[in-house]
Amino acid sequence: MSISAKQIILDNPPTGKVEYDLSSPESTFKVVTKELSESQLGPKQVLVKTLYLSNDPTQRGWIQKDQDPAKAYVPPVLKGDIVKSLGVGKVIAAGSESKYEAGDFVSGFMGWTEYGIIEETAIFTKIDTTKKLPLFYYLTIFGMTSLTAWIGLHEIAEIKETDTVLVSAASGATGSIVVQLAKKIFNCKKVVGISSSEEKCKYVESIGADVCLNYNDEDFAKKLAAASGETGYSVYWDNVGGATLDLALLNLALKGRVVACGAIAAYNDSSLSQINNWFCVITKRLTVKGFIVGDHAAKYGEAINTLTTGLMSGKISVKEGVDFTVVDCQGDKFDQVPKTWGKLFSSKPNGKLVTLVSEN
Amino acid sequence: MSISAKQIILDNPPTGKVEYDLSSPESTFKVVTKELSESQLGPKQVLVKTLYLSNDPTQRGWIQKDQDPAKAYVPPVLKGDIVKSLGVGKVIAAGSESKYEAGDFVSGFMGWTEYGIIEETAIFTKIDTTKKLPLFYYLTIFGMTSLTAWIGLHEIAEIKETDTVLVSAASGATGSIVVQLAKKIFNCKKVVGISSSEEKCKYVESIGADVCLNYNDEDFAKKLAAASGETGYSVYWDNVGGATLDLALLNLALKGRVVACGAIAAYNDSSLSQINNWFCVITKRLTVKGFIVGDHAAKYGEAINTLTTGLMSGKISVKEGVDFTVVDCQGDKFDQVPKTWGKLFSSKPNGKLVTLVSEN
Repeated sequence: MSISAKQIILDNPPTGKVEYDLSSPESTFKVVTKELSESQLGPKQVLVKTLYLSNDPTQRGWIQKDQDPAKAYVPPVLKGDIVKSLGVGKVIAAGSESKYEAGDFVSGFMGWTEYGIIEETAIFTKIDTTKKLPLFYYLTIFGMTSLTAWIGLHEIAEIKETDTVLVSAASGATGSIVVQLAKKIFNCKKVVGISSSEEKCKYVESIGADVCLNYNDEDFAKKLAAASGETGYSVYWDNVGGATLDLALLNLALKGRVVACGAIAAYNDSSLSQINNWFCVITKRLTVKGFIVGDHAAKYGEAINTLTTGLMSGKISVKEGVDFTVVDCQGDKFDQVPKTWGKLFSSKPNGKLVTLVSEN
Repeated sequence: MSISAKQIILDNPPTGKVEYDLSSPESTFKVVTKELSESQLGPKQVLVKTLYLSNDPTQRGWIQKDQDPAKAYVPPVLKGDIVKSLGVGKVIAAGSESKYEAGDFVSGFMGWTEYGIIEETAIFTKIDTTKKLPLFYYLTIFGMTSLTAWIGLHEIAEIKETDTVLVSAASGATGSIVVQLAKKIFNCKKVVGISSSEEKCKYVESIGADVCLNYNDEDFAKKLAAASGETGYSVYWDNVGGATLDLALLNLALKGRVVACGAIAAYNDSSLSQINNWFCVITKRLTVKGFIVGDHAAKYGEAINTLTTGLMSGKISVKEGVDFTVVDCQGDKFDQVPKTWGKLFSSKPNGKLVTLVSEN
C-alpha cells in the first residue's frame, strides 16, 4: 500500500509577517507531495488520514524562526517540517506494537497534511464513535479550550464542592467552559464570573454563574469584594493577568488557589502585566499554579468522558463561546489550509475555526 | 498552689507609635499581677513558667488596633490580653488530659508574663534536654527563622537532591539556614545565593553555597543566568520579591517551584513589589507557594531533630546570621520587657534578641 499525500511544510520560518499564499515566492509554506506506506511505520507509530484540523493562534509561536528546541515553550516546527496542528483523523495503519488499529478515529497532534505518520504519543484520545457526536466536536467542545478548563479545575485547582470560584474572561472560549464545569459538573458552592459588558455578563449568568461582574462598571472592585462572601474566593481562574489578577489576589481566601491559565492583558503591552499585590501570596498562603494542558494528556480521556456526559445530559451548552465555522479545504482546496488559519489574525471569525480536510 | 505572676497586657492598642515605657500615662502596655493556680487549668492546658522570650518584628502586627479577628493574618492580641510572644518555658503543672507534665521544657507561643496558662496546642515542641544545648537555642537556631527554612524546603518546595536552588537574601537569618540545609542536609545538586556585597557573598559561600552573586554587580543578571545551568533553577527561595523575583522567574526551569517566604523589597515602598514577568508562571508551568511557618506546627519536632543533628555534627553553623543577644529582664527588671522588644525598631542589634525572664 502506498499513498500519495499532499503536505504543507514550513519553508521560510517567519520572524515577523507570515505569507499565507503558497503561490508567492515569499511564501512561509510550501506544498510537497510525499509517498507514504505502511512499511515506513515504526512499532509505535500510526499512519493517520487527516479529517479535520484545528486553527489556533498558538501555532504562530511554533513556527517562529531560530527557536532553541531545548528552551522552547513547546517543541518548535523547524524548516522542512510539516506544519504542526491539532486535528482529528482516522487510523489507516498502525505499527506492530501500537495500541491503535486501522479504523480508529483519534484526536491529537497532527499536521497540515492529507496523511501523516505520527508517534502514538501524539494521540490524545481514541474517539468513542458510539456517542455519534460530530467528529469536529473533538476540536471544539472536546478541544483544547475545554480540556484546559477540565484539567485546570480537576488537576490544578483540585476543585471541591465547597469552593467559591472566581473566573476572569468568563464569556470566552475557556472561561465559559470553566463556569459551566465549576457550577454544573463540580457543583461548586458559588461561581462568580468577570466579563467586559452587561450583555456578556448576562450570557455568563445564563450558562451557570451565580453572578457575573462587568469590569467596566465603576463599582467593579466593590462588587467583586462583596461577591466573595465572608472568607474570600477559594479559587481564582486567571485568564487575563494584570489588574484583574491584582484585584483577585486582594479578594482571595486564606490558602486560596490561583490557576494561572492565561495573561491576555499583557499580550500586546507587557507593562499591563504588572502585579502589585504579590505580598498576598505570602500573607494569605496562596498557591499559584501555571499549567499547560499538553502536560496532562494522560487525563484527556477522563476529561472528554466528563464533557461528553455533561453535553449529552444538557448540563453543558455548546451554543455560544464555543461556536464553530468549518472551512472546506478538501482535495484541490488543500492549499487553502494556511490562508484558513490566517483568518484567525485577520477577519477573526467567532468561535472555533475548523478546517475540513476530508469527510471520512 | 497559687503563684503570683507579673504580666504585661495590651492596654492601648496602637495604630502608630508604640509607647514602650510602662510608667508613661500613654503607655501601650500595663503591668498587672495575677494569681494563678493549678485549679484553673483546663484538661488540655498547661501552666508554664517563662524562661526566655523571643523578640520579633511581626509582634507589632499582632497588637495593631481594630483588627478583624476573622480576617487577621494571625489572631490579634486584643486590649486586656497578655502580649503574645514566642518563648521557652518550663511546665509547672499540666491539665488532666495533657500530654505534657511538670518539669518538661517546651517552646511555643507564650506571652509577656512570668507564668502563663496556655493551650497545649500553643506548644511547638518539648525540648530534648539530653542534648544539653542552651535553652535559648530554641528561639535562635531552632527558632522561627530556622523552622521556616526547614518547612519551606521540606514541606513547600519538597526539595530533592536533584534540585538547583536559588536563594535570595542568602546571608540573612532565614536565607543562611536555607543555604546550609539545602546544600548540607538535603544534599541539593547546586545552591546559588544572592546577596548585597562581595563580603556577604563570601560568607554565604563559606556556609555551603556553590556560588553567591552580588546583586549590585553590574553583570548580576548575566551571572545569574549563567549559574542556572542548562535547564534553569528548579527551586527559587524568595525572601525579597520585587526585581529579584522578576529576574528569578526568567531563570527558572520548566515546572520550577517558587517558595514565597518574604517580600522585603516592598515593605517600605510597595511600588518596588511589581512583578513584570508573571507570564513565566504560565509558560514555564511554575508552582508558587506562599506559606506561614505557623501553619506547619505539626512538623516542628521533625524540623528541630534535623537541625539538632546538623548542628551537633558541625554541618550547620550558628556563628553568623543567627547570632544572639540575651537581655536580662528577671525579677525587678521584668518591666523592661517592652523596651527590650522595642530595640528591634531603634538600635537594631545584630542577630537574635532574646529576653531572659528566668534562668530556671
